[in-house]
Amino acid sequence: METIKQNQTAEALKWRYATKVFDKTKKLSEEQLQLLKQAVQLAPSSYGLQPYQVLIVSNPEIKEKLKEAAFGQSQLTDASHIFVFARTHNFTEKHVDEYAINIAETRGIDVADIKGFVDVMKGTVNSRSQDELANWNAKQAYIALGVLLETAALHEIDACLMEGFNNAHFDGILGLADRNLTSVVIASVGFRSSDDGYQNLNKVRKSDGDLFIHI
Amino acid sequence: METIKQNQTAEALKWRYATKVFDKTKKLSEEQLQLLKQAVQLAPSSYGLQPYQVLIVSNPEIKEKLKEAAFGQSQLTDASHIFVFARTHNFTEKHVDEYAINIAETRGIDVADIKGFVDVMKGTVNSRSQDELANWNAKQAYIALGVLLETAALHEIDACLMEGFNNAHFDGILGLADRNLTSVVIASVGFRSSDDGYQNLNKVRKSDGDLFIHI
Repeated sequence: METIKQNQTAEALKWRYATKVFDKTKKLSEEQLQLLKQAVQLAPSSYGLQPYQVLIVSNPEIKEKLKEAAFGQSQLTDASHIFVFARTHNFTEKHVDEYAINIAETRGIDVADIKGFVDVMKGTVNSRSQDELANWNAKQAYIALGVLLETAALHEIDACLMEGFNNAHFDGILGLADRNLTSVVIASVGFRSSDDGYQNLNKVRKSDGDLFIHI
Repeated sequence: METIKQNQTAEALKWRYATKVFDKTKKLSEEQLQLLKQAVQLAPSSYGLQPYQVLIVSNPEIKEKLKEAAFGQSQLTDASHIFVFARTHNFTEKHVDEYAINIAETRGIDVADIKGFVDVMKGTVNSRSQDELANWNAKQAYIALGVLLETAALHEIDACLMEGFNNAHFDGILGLADRNLTSVVIASVGFRSSDDGYQNLNKVRKSDGDLFIHI
């Protein structure tokens, strides 16, 4: 594997910030969009279940509607693309079975060969209420969100994690109910405007001693 | 900023896998540990609140106890370090005030200068039940988990995301209640054993068409 400089991830994470003002004239290239999608696709999740889908919105009219459903925040229209992470709404054994078929096809084996693993996953799913599954699935989407934000920064693409939006309105605008999906979190992705003063502020983080406990 | 090759993040994410068997003779160097900690510290979170702390366990006796509380999974003892993400248990306005002081000190301003932002955060915190705050805080920790897993892969460090452990037992072993913390998810970090057959399996992911919806 290609080596990366020791300080390269930290530099990228310092360069990034929650972009407030995007340059609306700058759009992601097809290559940039592909590399972000690939990172999201490869993101880890519990058991590898990926209990979510990701909507990528670039249509200007739809972005305008999403902005209204997000308290008018300008990122929704000015960023190049909006990534909407949506968890699977009713999550059942059927989704485990679909995953099992994908495993079998990808690895050239029979579903019967992984019966033990499938039973463990079904046991987990069946032991949880729909509320617990909703939280579990949302958390998996947040792992993919973290991977998206870091990957963007490494490639000098700006992004803003956003939780401040009306989930029900988003679901309506994007037709998510018909797809058995519910929006959980979004990231606006594009390029910072030079007018965005936030890029010049010192990054605020818990100190090493306040964040970490060594045992 | 240093440039990174276009396919470098995808290559790293393909190289990684949920490591089942760690080489117990291989330990993270101090440099490697520092770069992982720095990435976790720089990870984004909602409002930048970082409503969690991270325990890093290398003590062999404690790792042995954690293994018992994690259904005997060998990663707990054989990995070099165990990262335990623990959310703030009772999350209140006090934590927002501590963050406000950190912002003011980091940016050389008065807390009064950011009263509007602080009020928004307090409004959010006060509008949520303790259950809702617990889920919210846990999700923020999962962003940091995603950043840890990607950063490890980029630097050819192995890791395994693990949710299968007894949270209450972990909290007891690590003395988390006294610190107002509750364990939410862990990552075992170290180096794969050449005996771990899982590293040779094809990675299974949803196809582009099953994961993404373009609008």
